[in-house]
Amino acid sequence: MSVITLLTDFGLQDPYVGIMKGVILSIQGDARIVDVTHQIPPQDVVQASLYLQSAYRFFPTGSVHICVVDPGVGSDRSIIAAETERFKFLAPDNGLLPPVLANEGIKIIVRVENPKYTLQPVSRTFHGRDIFAPVGARLAAGLALQELGPSIDVKKMVEPAIPEPVFKTPETLCGTILAVDHFGNLITNVKPADIEQLRSMPENDIRVDLAGRFIDGLAESYDSVAKERPLAIIGSLGYMEIAVNCGNAMLYFNLKKGDPVRLTTRKKAFGQTA
Amino acid sequence: MSVITLLTDFGLQDPYVGIMKGVILSIQGDARIVDVTHQIPPQDVVQASLYLQSAYRFFPTGSVHICVVDPGVGSDRSIIAAETERFKFLAPDNGLLPPVLANEGIKIIVRVENPKYTLQPVSRTFHGRDIFAPVGARLAAGLALQELGPSIDVKKMVEPAIPEPVFKTPETLCGTILAVDHFGNLITNVKPADIEQLRSMPENDIRVDLAGRFIDGLAESYDSVAKERPLAIIGSLGYMEIAVNCGNAMLYFNLKKGDPVRLTTRKKAFGQTA
Amino acid sequence: MSVITLLTDFGLQDPYVGIMKGVILSIQGDARIVDVTHQIPPQDVVQASLYLQSAYRFFPTGSVHICVVDPGVGSDRSIIAAETERFKFLAPDNGLLPPVLANEGIKIIVRVENPKYTLQPVSRTFHGRDIFAPVGARLAAGLALQELGPSIDVKKMVEPAIPEPVFKTPETLCGTILAVDHFGNLITNVKPADIEQLRSMPENDIRVDLAGRFIDGLAESYDSVAKERPLAIIGSLGYMEIAVNCGNAMLYFNLKKGDPVRLTTRKKAFGQTA
Repeated sequence: MSVITLLTDFGLQDPYVGIMKGVILSIQGDARIVDVTHQIPPQDVVQASLYLQSAYRFFPTGSVHICVVDPGVGSDRSIIAAETERFKFLAPDNGLLPPVLANEGIKIIVRVENPKYTLQPVSRTFHGRDIFAPVGARLAAGLALQELGPSIDVKKMVEPAIPEPVFKTPETLCGTILAVDHFGNLITNVKPADIEQLRSMPENDIRVDLAGRFIDGLAESYDSVAKERPLAIIGSLGYMEIAVNCGNAMLYFNLKKGDPVRLTTRKKAFGQTA
Repeated sequence: MSVITLLTDFGLQDPYVGIMKGVILSIQGDARIVDVTHQIPPQDVVQASLYLQSAYRFFPTGSVHICVVDPGVGSDRSIIAAETERFKFLAPDNGLLPPVLANEGIKIIVRVENPKYTLQPVSRTFHGRDIFAPVGARLAAGLALQELGPSIDVKKMVEPAIPEPVFKTPETLCGTILAVDHFGNLITNVKPADIEQLRSMPENDIRVDLAGRFIDGLAESYDSVAKERPLAIIGSLGYMEIAVNCGNAMLYFNLKKGDPVRLTTRKKAFGQTA
Repeated sequence: MSVITLLTDFGLQDPYVGIMKGVILSIQGDARIVDVTHQIPPQDVVQASLYLQSAYRFFPTGSVHICVVDPGVGSDRSIIAAETERFKFLAPDNGLLPPVLANEGIKIIVRVENPKYTLQPVSRTFHGRDIFAPVGARLAAGLALQELGPSIDVKKMVEPAIPEPVFKTPETLCGTILAVDHFGNLITNVKPADIEQLRSMPENDIRVDLAGRFIDGLAESYDSVAKERPLAIIGSLGYMEIAVNCGNAMLYFNLKKGDPVRLTTRKKAFGQTA
């Protein structure tokens, strides 16, 4: 039994995801298929990359992670298969995979080219069905990656889609809102390591600036502030999120994906513990 | 093979549900995971409780039902595991479980405390991943509930979240709209037993009052009225629903969750059969 | 192991789909259940028929396809079970099935009547749970269709729900937009064979007329036009679609399901290859 995960922007209203599962089960009848999500905003490689990073490590060793967020379907962009110690990954070469591969370490990485393992003919509109599903099913069945195509040079892969936050000064970090989740939480590109670096400054309390509205300190849980009050927290995806206790931060701050977030340091106020 | 059901307010746009499934399959590789729904409105314990009641009994004996609608994540609310003759249940102590436990009869009920069966460390933002998924997987694998923590006193559990309808007089029942489903059907908290009690009155036909608009009698099927016409019916969730044949009752009546519904009795009109 | 697919208009916010899966797994514990989609617009038999056609063939031989888009639930419409060389189908007799049965060729077709294989009592509001799920599970387990009820005359089935495009002249084809997908692609009822027929005319290039705005030629892939530009293409569902490269054709053209699309022929422009 092997687990195959699917992460796409296909949505759930059309038969596209079901068709991919049909193709997979036609090849690998005992695959366990798990949806990570199919509601990535169309062609949003940044969010796809963020969500893959947050999810992949929680699956059983041996899982095959298939990601189809693919603005370039039908063009000459490559499709990449990579194997790490624990997992296999299949995705377009569009900046989606680099962060997870950097985390996990690459054992083998190839360009998917061998027509023997795709549906025939391959359409130019639905590579999820014609390439990703059958190739992913065969990877789950144990096919060696070398069968799929030539090794590639990691340095020539498209660069990571997720922007890194930037230190303007040692006390000032400029980040970005990468995604807004179902609860209205604003997920930023600021990582715990960035926070630690700010906290190494002499005035070491964190102030978060959201378009001129401020949150002081990082919270440990949603209910560490009163209901309907905002907080900053290292969220369950591993990044700093802006949330509102029992509320919706997107509506509270009227912010959206791509908007900036700025972190500065300040002297910790007397009696403040967060 | 064991069935694990998931009922949450996590939505499907983010990786949260997929991550829970990854954790479950990492522990219990042959679990069959079924989504009841993940689109409970955020923190709506009433709808979660209603939907669990409607669904749980249709699953195979031995199924583990995991419910994560949890306004108190990270606070000191308890998590409860309960075993009945046919099923196991795992949910926060927030009023979600009492109706199904009253239906089924409790064999064992404990507070989930043993860190041996959770992910480590347990975050304060995502107990679905860190507690509910791994504990539910172990229950499906046969772990005895007593391993999870101490027995609790059922009387000290948080009271049922679903409000009971109230008889203002023997002929007047005041109920509430608990939820609006995908078709726009208005699902109330009025049960068949309440209707029977009204029907034991001398003038025993039912009149439903929806903010001053009336429906007379209970229908047996949607098409017992003309297309686009409203009806009251005991719906498939086991409660009285207000529907519109081939239409949308929410839009027809301009009503929403929490709005009142009033039932009175009247003399059955000549020739009326419903 | 048998595959059961589900195609409904139940949506995902309510427990209806989960309940069907519970009933299926209670009868056929090792069934692999795959969602084709549950987000058919309520009672839209045309889109259900289109999506079934696009999806069914990609599933393993032996799969049971259950379709519950059923404006007539509780009325006296029939439920049909059909067996072809490769698949079994279960759906209301409302025009949903004829196109796939015409493709595949019918071996056996019956009206589902035998109460032995349904839940008891059968409600008049939720045949998905009470009839389709248990009967589909038994078909997957190998039950002979003849057990379900009497053979029916295919000619007396309700006619196909999908309208055929009409040739007004040999050079003018009038079609219809059948559905708008998640990406905003406009899926028409024009098939490759219709295009071939137009292309057999002396002036054999295709012009697509969308409410007075024109697309010349059929594209081979989305990126054969510039970003944000429209194109016509044989889409992955097997019909002509109107798309916008990295954009949304529904918004671009301000068109919707049911709107007309007209194809005419013209002399191929010099240097044009599409």
